[in-house]
Amino acid sequence: MLKVPDHQVAGHKGRDGMPGPLVDDSGHFYKPLQDDDRGSNEVAFYKSFSSNTEIPDLVRRFFPIFYGTQLIEAADGSGLHPHLVLQDFVSSHLNPSIMDIKIGSRTWPPQASEDYIQTCLKRDRHTTSIALGFMISGLQVRGSQESETWKPDKKLVKKFTAKDVRLVLRKFVSTNTSVDTGMDPDCSLASTVYGGSAGILAQLLELKKWFEGQTIYHFYSCSVIMVYDKESVVKERNSGAEVKLVDFAHVSEGKGVIDHNFLGGLCSLIKFITEILTSSDEYEEAKASLQDPKKNCNCTD
Amino acid sequence: MLKVPDHQVAGHKGRDGMPGPLVDDSGHFYKPLQDDDRGSNEVAFYKSFSSNTEIPDLVRRFFPIFYGTQLIEAADGSGLHPHLVLQDFVSSHLNPSIMDIKIGSRTWPPQASEDYIQTCLKRDRHTTSIALGFMISGLQVRGSQESETWKPDKKLVKKFTAKDVRLVLRKFVSTNTSVDTGMDPDCSLASTVYGGSAGILAQLLELKKWFEGQTIYHFYSCSVIMVYDKESVVKERNSGAEVKLVDFAHVSEGKGVIDHNFLGGLCSLIKFITEILTSSDEYEEAKASLQDPKKNCNCTD
Repeated sequence: MLKVPDHQVAGHKGRDGMPGPLVDDSGHFYKPLQDDDRGSNEVAFYKSFSSNTEIPDLVRRFFPIFYGTQLIEAADGSGLHPHLVLQDFVSSHLNPSIMDIKIGSRTWPPQASEDYIQTCLKRDRHTTSIALGFMISGLQVRGSQESETWKPDKKLVKKFTAKDVRLVLRKFVSTNTSVDTGMDPDCSLASTVYGGSAGILAQLLELKKWFEGQTIYHFYSCSVIMVYDKESVVKERNSGAEVKLVDFAHVSEGKGVIDHNFLGGLCSLIKFITEILTSSDEYEEAKASLQDPKKNCNCTD
Repeated sequence: MLKVPDHQVAGHKGRDGMPGPLVDDSGHFYKPLQDDDRGSNEVAFYKSFSSNTEIPDLVRRFFPIFYGTQLIEAADGSGLHPHLVLQDFVSSHLNPSIMDIKIGSRTWPPQASEDYIQTCLKRDRHTTSIALGFMISGLQVRGSQESETWKPDKKLVKKFTAKDVRLVLRKFVSTNTSVDTGMDPDCSLASTVYGGSAGILAQLLELKKWFEGQTIYHFYSCSVIMVYDKESVVKERNSGAEVKLVDFAHVSEGKGVIDHNFLGGLCSLIKFITEILTSSDEYEEAKASLQDPKKNCNCTD
């Protein structure tokens, strides 16, 4: 049984004559191949990556598992269409909060055509890509109940400024701001979702280590997905936070050079998240200190 | 006594109506202020940086000491002209090999004008800046005697491809290739100049650590200078290798974001140098192994 996924936050959604993705209930995600070079390029990447024995397992887990391609009925009813069959990594999360972050200040490869460069450059200057080295492409943040989901419109997301990005990355791990945008985010989930040995920061740092050395692929216009389950955090103090890379239509050969464009953007995102953790630690410490009577008196015992 | 420096490998040299730099014999380097915003911008940077108490000493040593500005007779005899007075860090090297590497795949700040962006973009695409995240702007490599200096013409340097860059970074630390360009570089000085706790790689890694965190300045079109003394290496096994940052006419405010553009390019350069060290270690190990009779026989003692 194929159906339209509940939790897509960015990418094609069956508009502009392009069918949207589908999921089944066995954990597969069906992504329609784009008609032009992008489709064949993405298939080529998945084939190369999945058979490349030089990729460490610690890094492979950041990529959706690739199950090949399949001709299936397109979501828009337009007939049979080739799809990438991928791991549906969102399906294991009951009530997922998701963010899609396109990494890199440059979204075009060096060998791109003049026209393509100008189109990308214009877009990258009007988003935060050039200034921050990354841009938020989409997100949904769950409240304590499913009805309380904050999923800003794509057009709004595209207009995010550096200041908005800073705020949204805080809201993503807060429990007091899912719908109401006026409140100061409490970042009460930051230490569990971003922090800790299995948290998002630790995963991004692992990815960074790989990017400092790998010269096989350059990932243009590729996204980091951050996903976690708010309910699990509150109930079990375990967010199941995951980082995944998606969208490989513009991957090109590294030719012995590191992907300095992706790495730079990734380091910038890491800095943003580190700052949230640091300030929330300070907040926690300050709170703990207020609750510690010894620190709030002049006793000399 | 002011004179024209012996060892300038890149930058303005008193052409195109612009006076060149001067040095005195007390270790000062006089850099003429550029007439437009670039001159005042560079002075503003040096003033801000030299008075900024947040810069760790470990990082400050990578910048020339700033002694203020001074009105002096220009090198081209055009009359009094304001100059930056800086530390002449090359003068302490008797017989210096020098490389000037412009860091960053993007040489323009986000707020630049459309015209300026297009000019920079064109240049960055025709050099290795976009592909490698850095470009070599100039160099001189000393042979065992001063007469054996390899100092390729500026026009030739500008045309360096990725392959040339790889070769030149090897030739920079070789003793068999200063003039003859046909020989395979022996990289015999790599472990002393690039490697070791005081070598160039260690210094670049220290700089990298700072760039992963600092959000004060963004360094567009700024160069890393690598300098060492071939004679000292051969005689004392101590290269006195130094890394310095220069050219701050296009520094802009970081506004709380890391300089992902500089950091990415720096990481790419670090990777190039690491590879030379790794292959030269392998070479040294292979050589040592050949010289060790125990490793070349089937004896079982």
